[in-house]
Amino acid sequence: MNNKQTLLTEDFLLQNKAAKNLYFNYAAHLPIIDYHNHLPPDEIAEDKKFETISEIWLKGDHYKWRAMRALGVNEELITGKTTDEEKFLAWSRSLPQLLRNPLFHWSLMELKNTFGINEYLNAGNALEIYKKCNDLLRRDEFSVKGLLKRFNVEMIGTTDDPNDDLEHHKKIKKDNFDIAVLPSFRPDKVFNIADRSSFMLYLENLGKASGLEIRTFSDLLEALKTRIDYFHENGCRISDHGLTQMPSNFNMNAGLQKEFSQFLERKNSNPFSKPESFVGTILLELCRVYHQKGWVQQFHLGPLRNSNSRLLHLLGTDAGVDSIGDLSQSRSLSLFLNALDSTNQLAKTILYNINPADNEVFAAMCGNFNDGITVGKMQYGSGWWFLDQKDGIEKQLNAVSNLGVISTFVGMITDSRSFLSYSRHEYFRRVLCNLFGSEIEKGILPDDEKWIGEIIEDICYNNAKQYLNV
Amino acid sequence: MNNKQTLLTEDFLLQNKAAKNLYFNYAAHLPIIDYHNHLPPDEIAEDKKFETISEIWLKGDHYKWRAMRALGVNEELITGKTTDEEKFLAWSRSLPQLLRNPLFHWSLMELKNTFGINEYLNAGNALEIYKKCNDLLRRDEFSVKGLLKRFNVEMIGTTDDPNDDLEHHKKIKKDNFDIAVLPSFRPDKVFNIADRSSFMLYLENLGKASGLEIRTFSDLLEALKTRIDYFHENGCRISDHGLTQMPSNFNMNAGLQKEFSQFLERKNSNPFSKPESFVGTILLELCRVYHQKGWVQQFHLGPLRNSNSRLLHLLGTDAGVDSIGDLSQSRSLSLFLNALDSTNQLAKTILYNINPADNEVFAAMCGNFNDGITVGKMQYGSGWWFLDQKDGIEKQLNAVSNLGVISTFVGMITDSRSFLSYSRHEYFRRVLCNLFGSEIEKGILPDDEKWIGEIIEDICYNNAKQYLNV
Amino acid sequence: MNNKQTLLTEDFLLQNKAAKNLYFNYAAHLPIIDYHNHLPPDEIAEDKKFETISEIWLKGDHYKWRAMRALGVNEELITGKTTDEEKFLAWSRSLPQLLRNPLFHWSLMELKNTFGINEYLNAGNALEIYKKCNDLLRRDEFSVKGLLKRFNVEMIGTTDDPNDDLEHHKKIKKDNFDIAVLPSFRPDKVFNIADRSSFMLYLENLGKASGLEIRTFSDLLEALKTRIDYFHENGCRISDHGLTQMPSNFNMNAGLQKEFSQFLERKNSNPFSKPESFVGTILLELCRVYHQKGWVQQFHLGPLRNSNSRLLHLLGTDAGVDSIGDLSQSRSLSLFLNALDSTNQLAKTILYNINPADNEVFAAMCGNFNDGITVGKMQYGSGWWFLDQKDGIEKQLNAVSNLGVISTFVGMITDSRSFLSYSRHEYFRRVLCNLFGSEIEKGILPDDEKWIGEIIEDICYNNAKQYLNV
Repeated sequence: MNNKQTLLTEDFLLQNKAAKNLYFNYAAHLPIIDYHNHLPPDEIAEDKKFETISEIWLKGDHYKWRAMRALGVNEELITGKTTDEEKFLAWSRSLPQLLRNPLFHWSLMELKNTFGINEYLNAGNALEIYKKCNDLLRRDEFSVKGLLKRFNVEMIGTTDDPNDDLEHHKKIKKDNFDIAVLPSFRPDKVFNIADRSSFMLYLENLGKASGLEIRTFSDLLEALKTRIDYFHENGCRISDHGLTQMPSNFNMNAGLQKEFSQFLERKNSNPFSKPESFVGTILLELCRVYHQKGWVQQFHLGPLRNSNSRLLHLLGTDAGVDSIGDLSQSRSLSLFLNALDSTNQLAKTILYNINPADNEVFAAMCGNFNDGITVGKMQYGSGWWFLDQKDGIEKQLNAVSNLGVISTFVGMITDSRSFLSYSRHEYFRRVLCNLFGSEIEKGILPDDEKWIGEIIEDICYNNAKQYLNV
Repeated sequence: MNNKQTLLTEDFLLQNKAAKNLYFNYAAHLPIIDYHNHLPPDEIAEDKKFETISEIWLKGDHYKWRAMRALGVNEELITGKTTDEEKFLAWSRSLPQLLRNPLFHWSLMELKNTFGINEYLNAGNALEIYKKCNDLLRRDEFSVKGLLKRFNVEMIGTTDDPNDDLEHHKKIKKDNFDIAVLPSFRPDKVFNIADRSSFMLYLENLGKASGLEIRTFSDLLEALKTRIDYFHENGCRISDHGLTQMPSNFNMNAGLQKEFSQFLERKNSNPFSKPESFVGTILLELCRVYHQKGWVQQFHLGPLRNSNSRLLHLLGTDAGVDSIGDLSQSRSLSLFLNALDSTNQLAKTILYNINPADNEVFAAMCGNFNDGITVGKMQYGSGWWFLDQKDGIEKQLNAVSNLGVISTFVGMITDSRSFLSYSRHEYFRRVLCNLFGSEIEKGILPDDEKWIGEIIEDICYNNAKQYLNV
Repeated sequence: MNNKQTLLTEDFLLQNKAAKNLYFNYAAHLPIIDYHNHLPPDEIAEDKKFETISEIWLKGDHYKWRAMRALGVNEELITGKTTDEEKFLAWSRSLPQLLRNPLFHWSLMELKNTFGINEYLNAGNALEIYKKCNDLLRRDEFSVKGLLKRFNVEMIGTTDDPNDDLEHHKKIKKDNFDIAVLPSFRPDKVFNIADRSSFMLYLENLGKASGLEIRTFSDLLEALKTRIDYFHENGCRISDHGLTQMPSNFNMNAGLQKEFSQFLERKNSNPFSKPESFVGTILLELCRVYHQKGWVQQFHLGPLRNSNSRLLHLLGTDAGVDSIGDLSQSRSLSLFLNALDSTNQLAKTILYNINPADNEVFAAMCGNFNDGITVGKMQYGSGWWFLDQKDGIEKQLNAVSNLGVISTFVGMITDSRSFLSYSRHEYFRRVLCNLFGSEIEKGILPDDEKWIGEIIEDICYNNAKQYLNV
C-alpha cells in the first residue's frame, strides 16, 4: 500500500461539473449548524485539550468498536485497559480492512481536515501519525474550542437530561464563546419505569432539580414543566426523544394515576400495570408544552438497543451493540401526531428513522401534518446513525424529494460524541451536491446553477437557521 | 430564473442512444389504455369545458395540496374560498421549490403537452400563463373529450360504486364517443361496517339499486351479484378494492350470519363482533363471481388513510392526509389468493402496493398463483400513488423483472382524478425505455432493438389490451 | 432474433477498466468453495451421467417452473408427463421472454460454460441445441464429477437430514474424489411437531439412526447429539436451519417436558401446547453443541413456504410456490443470538435473509455479536434465493459494506439443486468486481489494485476457506 492517500482530492465525491459548481459556489463555505449531537458540554466549557488522538478519536466511538470486533480485534485493545498507543495501533491495523464502510472515508477526512495528514492510516505509518497528532493536540488551537472554530461551527445543540443543571452551558455563555452551545431537553430516563430502583432515584433527583415533591402523576408532570422552563431560560429551544416505537396509548386515567401513586410509594409490589399509558401520556403532555414554548421536538425511532447483554454488562449502554429494528411504525406515529395536531398543539417536528426500509413511511407521514403556516414544519430528519453513509444519505434525500419537499429540508447533523466528526457535514454536502449535480447533467433538473444553488444553501444552512430560530 | 424551460427536450429522461431508439421507434406513438383511474364519468358524458386551469389542474389534486402545505401556503389558498386565480398564483410560487418531487416534472409536461407552454411556471410568469391556459380551455378542442383525444387515449377505466346507475357511461356509449369509457366495480363502501349509520344508508341504496330487500347476509351477497351483472351488462370487466391489509378470515358462520341480521335490525346495540369475517367472506364471494364472469380483479393494499382528523373534518376524505403504511402483507395475501386458487376460482389479479419496502414481497407473491394458462395472470401493478415517480417506477419495474416476468407486465395507469394526467404515460414510457436502453448500452441486455422493442410495445400497450380484452 | 448471443463477452458485467483488472487478475481463476447447496450426494457418489439436458437443467428447477407458469405454459410441459424434449422446447420458447430475470443470464452462461453454446436459446434453435447438449452429456467428462471439475470446484457442502446415514458421502471419500463433498446438518424436520404422524415417524427413524429410544425431551436431545457426533465423524463442520422467524421462547420447563412425553405416547389427544418453546429449546441446545464442536451454524430466515396448496398437493414441497415473507425478524433474532452469546456458546454464524427490505436489519444485527476473536464471526450471508440476481447481490454487498466489514465476507454459494449452477459464482464475482471497480473509477475507493484485489480474493475464496476451515 502506498501511504499517500489519493482519495480526498478537491473533487472527492463530486462526479461532474455541475456538482463541483454547486459545492464550491454554494455549499463549501457555509457555517455549520449542528443542532443535534452528543458532545460533552463540560469539555467545551473547560476548553479541554486532549492527551492523545485515541482519547478524542477512539474513546467513546462505538462505530469503530463494532468494526474492530468484526475484524477479530480483542476487546482489550478496543475498550480495555491497554494504553492509548496500543489502541491506536490496533485501530490503524483495522482501517485498511474497512473499505466501503463509512468509517474509512470519515477517518481519512478527520485526519486530513484536523491534522493535515494526507495518508492512508495503516500499521506502517501508525506510530508516526500517532505522534504527529498528539503533538498537534498539545497546541492551543487544538483545544475543543479551537477545533470547533476550525470546523466553522456556528451552533451546537447538545443532548441533556432534564435534571441537568446546565452549569456548563452557563459557563460557556458567560465566557462569551462565539459559537452558540445550546442544550436540548431529552427526558428519556423519565420513561424507563420498568427498572423501578433507577426510576425512583431519577424522580428523587428530578424532585431536587425542580424543587417539587413528586408523589403523584400530576406532580411528575409539574416537575418536568419546571425543568422545561429552566431549560428555556438557558437557551434551549428543542427537545429530543429516543423510542423504539411511538406510544399510541395516552389514557392515563384516574385509576392508573392512583396506581402510579401507589407504585411510587412502593405499596404495590407488582410492576405498574400500564407503562405504555404512562409513557404515552407523559410524552403527549410534554409535547403540548413544547408547542406552547415554540420549541422544535425531535423523535429518534426504531433502534433495538443493548442486544448483547455480555457487552452491556461489561461496558454499559452505547457499547456498540445496538442495531436496526423492524417493528411497525406508521400507525402509532400517525395516532400520536394526530393527537397533537387535532388540538392545534403540534410543535415543529423532526422524525429520525433507523431502518432504511421505512424511509418512505416516514417521509410520507410528515406530509400529513404540515399546517400551511410554518415552512417545512414536519421534517423527516437526516440519515441517522447506521444510515449516515453515502448510500443512506442519498436514500433519505431521495425519499424526502420524492414524497416531500426537499427544498425545505433542515439538513445534516453529526449526532456524534466526538469533536472530530464535523467532517461529516462536508461529507453530506458533497453527497448532496453530487446528487443534484448529476441530475442537472442528466437533464433531470434544470441547468440553472443559481436556482439549484440557492436550494443547496437552504438545505445546508438557511433552513436550519430559520427553523430553529438560531 | 430564466422562464424558458429547457428540460423537456425530445430526449427528456432518455440518457442513451438505445433508450431513444426504443422510445421513438416503439413506445411514443402507442395509444393509451388507462384501465384504472378516478376520472369523473359525468364530465366525460357532458364533454365538460373548464373555466380556468385551476379547476382542471388544482381542484381535487391532493398531491399538490400536500406540497403547498409543506411550503407554508395557507389552506385558504389551497382548498379555501379564494379565487381560482389566487390559487393558481399560490401554486405558481410553490412550483420552483418542488424540484425532485414528481409534481415538478409532471407539471412542466402537463403545461407543455396540453397548452404548448414551454416555461418554468413561477411567480413571474404565472398571470400570463393563467390567462393563456384559460383562453385555450375555452376552445372546443380543449373540452374533456377533446383533451382525451389529444392524448391518444384508447380506453379509460373509471372507478364506480356498485350502487352507481352508470347513467354517464351509458350516455358516453350512446353518443358514440370513440374512446371506450368503461366502469370498474369498486365495492369499498360495503366493507365499512364500523360506521353503522353510513353502512345502513349504503345498504338501503344497494337495496334500491338491486331491487332486493337486504335483511340477511345472503341478501347482501345476492344484491351485490345483481349489481355485478348490471355492471357487466354495461361493459365492466374489472373490479377494484382498497384495503389496508387483505382479510384472512373468511368464516362467516351461521352464528355470525345471525348476529349480522340482528345488527341490520339494530337489535344488538353492540357493534357487529367480527367485522373481519364479514369483510373476508364478502370479498371472497365477490372474487368468485369475478372469476365466473371472466373479470380482472384489482387490490390496492397498504395505505394509512385520513391520518389528520383536522383536515379530514375540514375537507373530507382524499384531503391529502393519507400516507404509506407498514403493516405486514404477505401472510394474509397468500391465504386469500390461495383460498381462491384452491377451488380454481382465482380471477386474473392485479396487486398494487403503497410501500416500496414491500415491492419484492408483492412481486414474489404473484409468482405463486399463475395457472400455466393465462399469460401474466398474476400482476404486480405499476408504481402506485406516492410511488409513481422515476424512482418508484424503476423500483417496481426492477422488482417485477428480478422476481417475475417483466415482458408480461400490463403497464402504466394514471390512477388520477385529472384529465391532464395523461402525460404520466409518456413519463412512464420514457423511464421504461431508459431502463432497458441503459442495460443494452451496458451489455446487460441483448443489443437487439427489435427483440427489446417488441417487449416495450407489449408493456406499453399490447399486454393490457390482451389482458383486459378491450 | 439473431441466434448468436453477444452478451457473454469477456467483459460481461465489467463496466470499466478497474473492474476488469480486479476480475481477471484476482477473481476469475480462484477455485469455488460452495459451502451450501442442495446437490444430491447420491448422484455425485455414483458419478451420474444424464440422458438429456432437461434432466440436469429443468427437472427440479422451480425458478424455471415459476417463470414458465407466468408465461402461460401448461403444467404438463413443466412438471408433467410429457417428454424431456417437449419440456426443453417449452423452456426454449420461454427464455426470450425472460429478459431482466436472472434466469436469462444464468441460462446463457450455463449453456456457454457447460456446453460451449454461444447462442440465444429460442424456438428456432432449440432442437439443434437439445441434441448437441445431449450428445455432450453422454461423454465421460460430462458426468457429475467431470462437471464439478470443469467448474473448478474445490469444496461442496450438501444439505442433509440428521437421520441420513451419509453413505454417499462415505463412498465419495472412499473413492478419493478430489473435490471435498461434506455434509451439513439440517434438522428442520425435528421442528415440524404440528404434523404429529410425520413427526412420530421422524422420531422413530431418528431412534433407529441414533440407536436410542426416544420417550422424553431429553432422549430427543440426546439422540440429536448422537447424530451430530456421527456427522462430525463424517466431516461435517456446519449446520443449517430454515425458519420463518427465529424462535424467541426457550423455556421448555418440566411441565412442558412432561406434556411432550405424553404427546409422544399419544396420551394427550390435543396437540402439544407450546410448539414454540419446543422449537426454541431444541434449537438453542443444538446451537450449544455446534459451538462445542467448533461448527459454523447457518440460519435461513423469512420465506413463506407452500403458498399454493393446489401445486403443493400436485408436486409436493419446492414446487415453486414459496415466496418472500414480511414478518418482523429483529427482536427474536436478537434474543436468540444473545441467549447463546451470554453464556459464551455462540458458534460462528451465517444469517440469510429472503426479504431485501430487511438487508440492513440483518447486516446491523451481525455487528452486535462479534467476539473480538474470530475474524468475521457473524456473517450476513450472500443474496439468497429470490435475491441472487445482480440487484440482489449488489444490495447485500452494500448492506454488509455500509453496516459491517465487507472484507471479512465469506462470499457466494449456489444454494442450488443443479450441477450446472456453478456459473453463479462467476456471476457473483463479476458483479462484485464491477461494484468495487466502479467505485475506484469514481474516486470513492483507493486506486490501488493490489489492496482492493486482495480483498476481492478474500471474499471470493480465502475468507470461506479460513472460516470453514476446509
